[in-house]
Amino acid sequence: MIGRLNHIAIAVPDLAASCRQYTQMLGADVGDAQDLPEHGVTVVFVTLPNTKVELLHPLGEASPIAGFLEKSPGGGIHHVCYEVEDILAARDRLTEEGARVLGDGTPRTGAHGKPVLFLHPKDFDGCLIELEQV
Amino acid sequence: MIGRLNHIAIAVPDLAASCRQYTQMLGADVGDAQDLPEHGVTVVFVTLPNTKVELLHPLGEASPIAGFLEKSPGGGIHHVCYEVEDILAARDRLTEEGARVLGDGTPRTGAHGKPVLFLHPKDFDGCLIELEQV
Repeated sequence: MIGRLNHIAIAVPDLAASCRQYTQMLGADVGDAQDLPEHGVTVVFVTLPNTKVELLHPLGEASPIAGFLEKSPGGGIHHVCYEVEDILAARDRLTEEGARVLGDGTPRTGAHGKPVLFLHPKDFDGCLIELEQV
Repeated sequence: MIGRLNHIAIAVPDLAASCRQYTQMLGADVGDAQDLPEHGVTVVFVTLPNTKVELLHPLGEASPIAGFLEKSPGGGIHHVCYEVEDILAARDRLTEEGARVLGDGTPRTGAHGKPVLFLHPKDFDGCLIELEQV
């Protein structure tokens, strides 16, 4: 069911410092910062040959990653995103198998403009999983 | 400098349960468990179209992931691994730019039989990075 790893998302306390790490230390292809006010984050994409790293920084008052950075002020891996062909079929399979989908199970539009769902990290070894329909 | 994302490694408290999650819930291609006593882990590879997930479980008395699971008994993302062409050149660039390489800076042989180094997570937003020469 799951396809490609679309991205790893890392919550970062200092976006400019993180961009320097990935550019100068790791020599990666780092894009420009994009504000996504409807998602409460500023995001920078690091493009690798086979996938992406997304650096996430809180934007605005009610950012979904503010709580994460309160608990882990130095940052950390926030979630991983796998691609699926049919997000409703994926949701139904997961709930039938006993996994918990966050929210009311209705996909919402993710940061890439595509339908996404998040799965409960306690059902996947502490790993927050995003599914994105591609 | 960094190339492909070679894998994400997830430390898991119950390898059989995790294999069921990735097989039945997520419908992924899950391999057989392999004991790597020289690395203190039992590993299961989940093969995705563009990269791998490695499920890590402690093996033996002095497993390098035992401490991680003590702090996070439910599991969690342990590290991410990026490929590099020349691990000594990568190390030299990183240390020149101020990043800390764990240990004495001498690459050791990783779980795939290739030279690896680990970078200090405090220099990369709490993310433990493995570099593997391919």
